[in-house]
Amino acid sequence: MQASHDTRQRIINAAQELIYASSYNEVGVQEICDHARVKKGSFYHFFPSKRDLALAVLEQSHTFMRDEIINKSFHDDIPPLARIERFFTLLYEFHKDSRENTGSVFGCPFGNLGGEMSTQDEDIRNKVDSIFTASEKPFEKALAEAVERGDLQAIDTAATAKAIFAYTEGIMLYAKTSNNPELIRELGKHALQLTVAVNMQ
Amino acid sequence: MQASHDTRQRIINAAQELIYASSYNEVGVQEICDHARVKKGSFYHFFPSKRDLALAVLEQSHTFMRDEIINKSFHDDIPPLARIERFFTLLYEFHKDSRENTGSVFGCPFGNLGGEMSTQDEDIRNKVDSIFTASEKPFEKALAEAVERGDLQAIDTAATAKAIFAYTEGIMLYAKTSNNPELIRELGKHALQLTVAVNMQ
Repeated sequence: MQASHDTRQRIINAAQELIYASSYNEVGVQEICDHARVKKGSFYHFFPSKRDLALAVLEQSHTFMRDEIINKSFHDDIPPLARIERFFTLLYEFHKDSRENTGSVFGCPFGNLGGEMSTQDEDIRNKVDSIFTASEKPFEKALAEAVERGDLQAIDTAATAKAIFAYTEGIMLYAKTSNNPELIRELGKHALQLTVAVNMQ
Repeated sequence: MQASHDTRQRIINAAQELIYASSYNEVGVQEICDHARVKKGSFYHFFPSKRDLALAVLEQSHTFMRDEIINKSFHDDIPPLARIERFFTLLYEFHKDSRENTGSVFGCPFGNLGGEMSTQDEDIRNKVDSIFTASEKPFEKALAEAVERGDLQAIDTAATAKAIFAYTEGIMLYAKTSNNPELIRELGKHALQLTVAVNMQ
């Protein structure tokens, strides 16, 4: 059992690393097997298709982001809006480290796959869509708490959380296309503006 | 000359259509040649590599976006901030039509290629980066005009324009991953909040 679990895990880890560094279509099953040091027959024992592996990779990346960035950001030791600011700080630090260690900003693992694959694979599109929706929830909760505390006017917290996470995805794409993690810090400073209802003109 | 020009143009049009509907790595040179009805030797006469073709496709998509969406949005027949709102309306209408005609929201042709290819090809990354930067300019100009007219407080118009276009990219990705053009309208409504300096807490 343990050996089997290890093999499956090695395949997921290899695919996660290779796909994140390039793209889904660029990485073949053979390359993943070579990188994981498993035989191709073993691959198909665990994953009927490359798509099934992609879904497992997305799940693992989601767990990582939740544990390492979301949960640390939204811990309630500081006021709710400061947690949103901490989210952008932790996101910045993660991608600054990546830039220093690899030379590249890889962007968002969900946005990357969603942008590449949404018109090609409904299962991958739905998985990315559900990860985006789940990622909005801690923002929504923090916004509701901020409203309750009187830190914010009454706003549509669900719509605002969606706007902030969509903005986050745009920031991640910008950081990748400019290969510049500093943009996460600079653009992240504007995120809280999306929490304030304005009456234009 | 004309026949030669037509052949080159047919190759670009075929690649633009195929790549936009799927992804860069998914579409091969042979498929592009078949779609354009040209021989592979003819392809390499015009484009030394698939990357060179990708750069020409990005250029053509940029011209299209400028002519059909940016310039129409930012025409000075209405006040500057209303032009930014019109940008999201035209963007929405384009992708709503796409959804109705093809069943899919294809997202942003620059964001798609940038997200897929930025860690794999520096020329493509730089091209997307420069298109993003150029796309911020009409927003910056409208914001400066709004400040001058007294419609906005004095703000950093360059930083704000960058924030709005990064947000636009996030919105386009969300519309693609949810295959729902309505998100462009809904999320676009929040864009002008990024123009208002706020003093939090």
